[in-house]
Amino acid sequence: MLASTALVLFMTPGLAFFYGGMVRSKSVLNMMMMSLSSMGLIGVLWVLYGYSTAFGNDVGGGLLGNPTEAWGLKGLFVGSYSSSVADSSYVLSGSIPALAFVGFQATFAIITVALISGAVADRMKFGAWLLFAGIWATIVYFPVAHWVFAFDSSNGSVLGGWIANSLKAIDFAGGTAVHINAGIAALALAIVVGKRRGWPREPMRPHNLTLVMLGAGILWFGWFGFNAGSALGANGTAAFAMVNTIVATCAAMLAWLLVERIRDGKATSLGAASGVVAGLVAITPACSSVSPMGAIALGAITSALCALAVGLKFRFGYDDSLDVVGVHLVGGLAGTILIGFFADPGSPAGVAGLFYGGGFDQLWRQIVGALAVLVYSGVLTFVIALVVKAVFRGRIRISPEDEATGIDETEHAETAYDFSSHRLAGVVAGTPRPDAATPQAVAHVAAGKES
Amino acid sequence: MLASTALVLFMTPGLAFFYGGMVRSKSVLNMMMMSLSSMGLIGVLWVLYGYSTAFGNDVGGGLLGNPTEAWGLKGLFVGSYSSSVADSSYVLSGSIPALAFVGFQATFAIITVALISGAVADRMKFGAWLLFAGIWATIVYFPVAHWVFAFDSSNGSVLGGWIANSLKAIDFAGGTAVHINAGIAALALAIVVGKRRGWPREPMRPHNLTLVMLGAGILWFGWFGFNAGSALGANGTAAFAMVNTIVATCAAMLAWLLVERIRDGKATSLGAASGVVAGLVAITPACSSVSPMGAIALGAITSALCALAVGLKFRFGYDDSLDVVGVHLVGGLAGTILIGFFADPGSPAGVAGLFYGGGFDQLWRQIVGALAVLVYSGVLTFVIALVVKAVFRGRIRISPEDEATGIDETEHAETAYDFSSHRLAGVVAGTPRPDAATPQAVAHVAAGKES
Amino acid sequence: MLASTALVLFMTPGLAFFYGGMVRSKSVLNMMMMSLSSMGLIGVLWVLYGYSTAFGNDVGGGLLGNPTEAWGLKGLFVGSYSSSVADSSYVLSGSIPALAFVGFQATFAIITVALISGAVADRMKFGAWLLFAGIWATIVYFPVAHWVFAFDSSNGSVLGGWIANSLKAIDFAGGTAVHINAGIAALALAIVVGKRRGWPREPMRPHNLTLVMLGAGILWFGWFGFNAGSALGANGTAAFAMVNTIVATCAAMLAWLLVERIRDGKATSLGAASGVVAGLVAITPACSSVSPMGAIALGAITSALCALAVGLKFRFGYDDSLDVVGVHLVGGLAGTILIGFFADPGSPAGVAGLFYGGGFDQLWRQIVGALAVLVYSGVLTFVIALVVKAVFRGRIRISPEDEATGIDETEHAETAYDFSSHRLAGVVAGTPRPDAATPQAVAHVAAGKES
Repeated sequence: MLASTALVLFMTPGLAFFYGGMVRSKSVLNMMMMSLSSMGLIGVLWVLYGYSTAFGNDVGGGLLGNPTEAWGLKGLFVGSYSSSVADSSYVLSGSIPALAFVGFQATFAIITVALISGAVADRMKFGAWLLFAGIWATIVYFPVAHWVFAFDSSNGSVLGGWIANSLKAIDFAGGTAVHINAGIAALALAIVVGKRRGWPREPMRPHNLTLVMLGAGILWFGWFGFNAGSALGANGTAAFAMVNTIVATCAAMLAWLLVERIRDGKATSLGAASGVVAGLVAITPACSSVSPMGAIALGAITSALCALAVGLKFRFGYDDSLDVVGVHLVGGLAGTILIGFFADPGSPAGVAGLFYGGGFDQLWRQIVGALAVLVYSGVLTFVIALVVKAVFRGRIRISPEDEATGIDETEHAETAYDFSSHRLAGVVAGTPRPDAATPQAVAHVAAGKES
Repeated sequence: MLASTALVLFMTPGLAFFYGGMVRSKSVLNMMMMSLSSMGLIGVLWVLYGYSTAFGNDVGGGLLGNPTEAWGLKGLFVGSYSSSVADSSYVLSGSIPALAFVGFQATFAIITVALISGAVADRMKFGAWLLFAGIWATIVYFPVAHWVFAFDSSNGSVLGGWIANSLKAIDFAGGTAVHINAGIAALALAIVVGKRRGWPREPMRPHNLTLVMLGAGILWFGWFGFNAGSALGANGTAAFAMVNTIVATCAAMLAWLLVERIRDGKATSLGAASGVVAGLVAITPACSSVSPMGAIALGAITSALCALAVGLKFRFGYDDSLDVVGVHLVGGLAGTILIGFFADPGSPAGVAGLFYGGGFDQLWRQIVGALAVLVYSGVLTFVIALVVKAVFRGRIRISPEDEATGIDETEHAETAYDFSSHRLAGVVAGTPRPDAATPQAVAHVAAGKES
Repeated sequence: MLASTALVLFMTPGLAFFYGGMVRSKSVLNMMMMSLSSMGLIGVLWVLYGYSTAFGNDVGGGLLGNPTEAWGLKGLFVGSYSSSVADSSYVLSGSIPALAFVGFQATFAIITVALISGAVADRMKFGAWLLFAGIWATIVYFPVAHWVFAFDSSNGSVLGGWIANSLKAIDFAGGTAVHINAGIAALALAIVVGKRRGWPREPMRPHNLTLVMLGAGILWFGWFGFNAGSALGANGTAAFAMVNTIVATCAAMLAWLLVERIRDGKATSLGAASGVVAGLVAITPACSSVSPMGAIALGAITSALCALAVGLKFRFGYDDSLDVVGVHLVGGLAGTILIGFFADPGSPAGVAGLFYGGGFDQLWRQIVGALAVLVYSGVLTFVIALVVKAVFRGRIRISPEDEATGIDETEHAETAYDFSSHRLAGVVAGTPRPDAATPQAVAHVAAGKES
């Protein structure tokens, strides 16, 4: 659990690199700052009232926890720590300290907010982003996390959210609360903020695909914490979730590459990275409820859908810059709903989907859960974005001149790279120095020749 | 165990960066894609039949597990999960779920295949690589993993491989099955594919040594999963393996730098990174059987050998582009065989090597194990490479023109970097802007001056 | 514990990137090499005599462990491993193998040494650095670690250090032994080595802020091992430490950004990264003794102090190149001393600070502990640096010509980057190729247009 928390926290820098590598070099810092600042801001809000809102005792209808119940985490650690844990109704299972769960869930809140930023790359005012992030977490994420992740305590002393307890839709680690939620919010925010200058006319190539790959690698690595950690213990369910997380992602990567190969003639590294993320999104809600073979199918189908869906923004004209909608909204919907088909009664969740003789029962639950989050988040995000725009007197984005110069310089007074001292060494200028470093053996041979 | 799996899985992106940084900037994406696609492909094959082939009940002579025994991992999770674990004859120790072991071993299969790709940088067709990777895993890795890692179950209900059970060569975490195996396969494949255009005449400098360092750092980090995880529990053996993994690697780094200092006059960062990897390779088979002082000796000796061995390719004229042979084959052989000398009876493995009064008994076992894998893998890889070449009608590599252009563009329709938007900001052009970001304090002072 | 060790070990490469990104591109490799070589050197010394010096039975006055007690870790593993653990007086708690503790603490020694290197970027001879690092670890770090981290064993069979046992200053994970220690040493070394050529006249901008961000991300990730791992078990204290580590760092990031916004008008990514590190430094000694709300205050106050302190070097004229003094010395002092104010009796440490009715009792202990380390380390480091300078006959730094050329080339015969093969593809030259990779959907649309 503690290791999982570290892993999931590491995902947000991973996301910063994944997103940062995809934008142009003049806006990579702002892209990373949107993720980083989400960590700072949401981390603090979580301790203040976020955890209580999401996991406090339900205040009615499974819609919201009591925001002041554990303000500043008060009551979760006072007095002898051990007995506090035993007493605390926040503990989901006897052996896990309440604060371990607090830390773990904090990382979910952080990354969900950070995910949205990919849709407004290169152009949103940094202050406007911070304001948006704080309001959005408060009004959208914290309640939705309550709906999906807050289970009633076994003795009924704490009441949880309606999706977890009444609807009983399966969402192991956040297909609805994280991915559908962030994906639809990204769409609403992108519409309010508007298109990048020059989009879609000008090519806006990823400036650093090694950074994208690094981000994807860290995301995959961290996602084990997401999925295996959600089992709340190093048990059989965690191992099951882990194997599914590996294999669904592998299948999803191959599926995206295959779509590219067929459609475009070449399989790209950006496609591999995107397929990895699509697969991770797909298996997130499903990793305890489908078999490994089901995970392969679910990962591959979702990834292929996402690979096709990323073109929708051109058809409909919204500038979802880094495909948050195409990957997280579509992938989250597919992963959540396909559980209704692929759920295997032999898996830890023990539920049968349509293909396993379970009929439509689980399927409609999945659809209702997915749509509820989609509608709630979509509508509220649109309103929040308009409010933020109004607060900034209509200027939620930087000026066209600043956008041309690059948001890193105008919003952060920085530029990401400076290889100019290198140039003096003749390197960027393309004249390799004969005495400069070469792979191990070349150096060896060169040295040998001299001696 | 679960944490270890995440760590080892992270090694493959780490390897992608380690290798990717060492090639020229026009082929870094292809280099990374060879590692990434290994994850996708081998991950799926592992679930389908790889795990069964490696860890299924032996079908005779300790050579092969039954490939259809747990097709799609069927039987490892059906029914009540907990009882399935108790029943499963796949469980090596009572408390570890079968699927945790499946996931952990999947990562070994993945990285072994990915390791090979370093030998054919810049020139192998991507489709040919995928075909090679799939066949090689099936015919070479899965059986060899059975030989080395599949121990007979304590009650004899599942029979394992001959090196583990009959020969009793010590290979804690894969000196033979991973490193010798991948190293000799790299040699065979490099010979069939042929030299890079211009090699060894033209210098082919690593394009990004920070990426190489990042890869080496991730590999070291992940290797703890490799070695400590192979103890199958957070116990004393894992702690022992961990300390040895740290100290052998430290000594190996120093040894490589020392060789460079003496031979070439300068210690390089590429040497440090290579020494780290050589040390990790060396200690992989040995980490439970030598003392910490033995680990220092074993790491240093192996690293020095590797530092000398990377020059062999120039003598013999094979283009092992990123020194897979020099580091993994030589390092794997040294690490495996030196156990026969340095094994300390006070260590968890409890075996005495030649230097500890154990005579030649363990030494010949180590040599036989190492040679068996070397010969099997070398011969079969050569045949597989020729078959793949034939399938591609002789064109296993890209055309000389495409090689000149760069494999990233021709095989993946991408290039890794685009700093052109930055250039407009005057950065790459070497004119630092006075208002642009500077280290913290400089900004502070500048601000102070203005106010 | 084992996972924590891997995490903390990963911090040193993280530090290499954090530091490496902040220097100019002509000295990034040397910067990373100073961190990497610290791993190699200190790792080996730790096994030889470092662990014994720090955690061996006290030789008198709580000042030093017996350096030869477990030379080469002898006695910590001989014979049956399990019984050895039970017998070993090195075990802090019954269930943790001695060697797990050895490995964990090794990583502390390594990173403390590596931290110092940030003060002497771009100019110190590599050999001189290695000599300094070895002596400093031996004479300064190992004893100070004994003072702070070596607790008397419960049955009195092993006696520990004076700060831990007599003074009873609270330093959970190294505010004194790691950060004050490294910070004051950095100051002393920077003074002896002298200023960079051109400093502070010439701007010396960070050459790669994505690398800085990567380093900060890895440091944060790894710091969980630092802090949560110091609880020596996955228990409530570890969870408490973890939540505090998250939230103090979040608050610190926001505080640094706020200081920048007010002072300079813009919040920078370098500021975010620096705030993260300042917050981590601040919470390191305090994570078991303050409440989450206290952690927010402590993180924010410390970070704001550090953000102001990084300007001191211009006032006093020492070239602490990467602000080791401003962040680690000031942050370490603040974090250590503020415990005296913010310690919450409801936290696991169970101590009341000034603000919680505890009076000045804990405060003076904190101040004495902090000053003792500061004075001891400051004086001895100054002497060691002078000795090293004398050994190198006055030339502890490279020549001005070599500094102009770049230390990577002159000390390591390497340069970090070579994008020249890319240039041929028209990329760096700023002419995006229409057929080259674009974000997912752009590629899709382009393909669609063609078909």
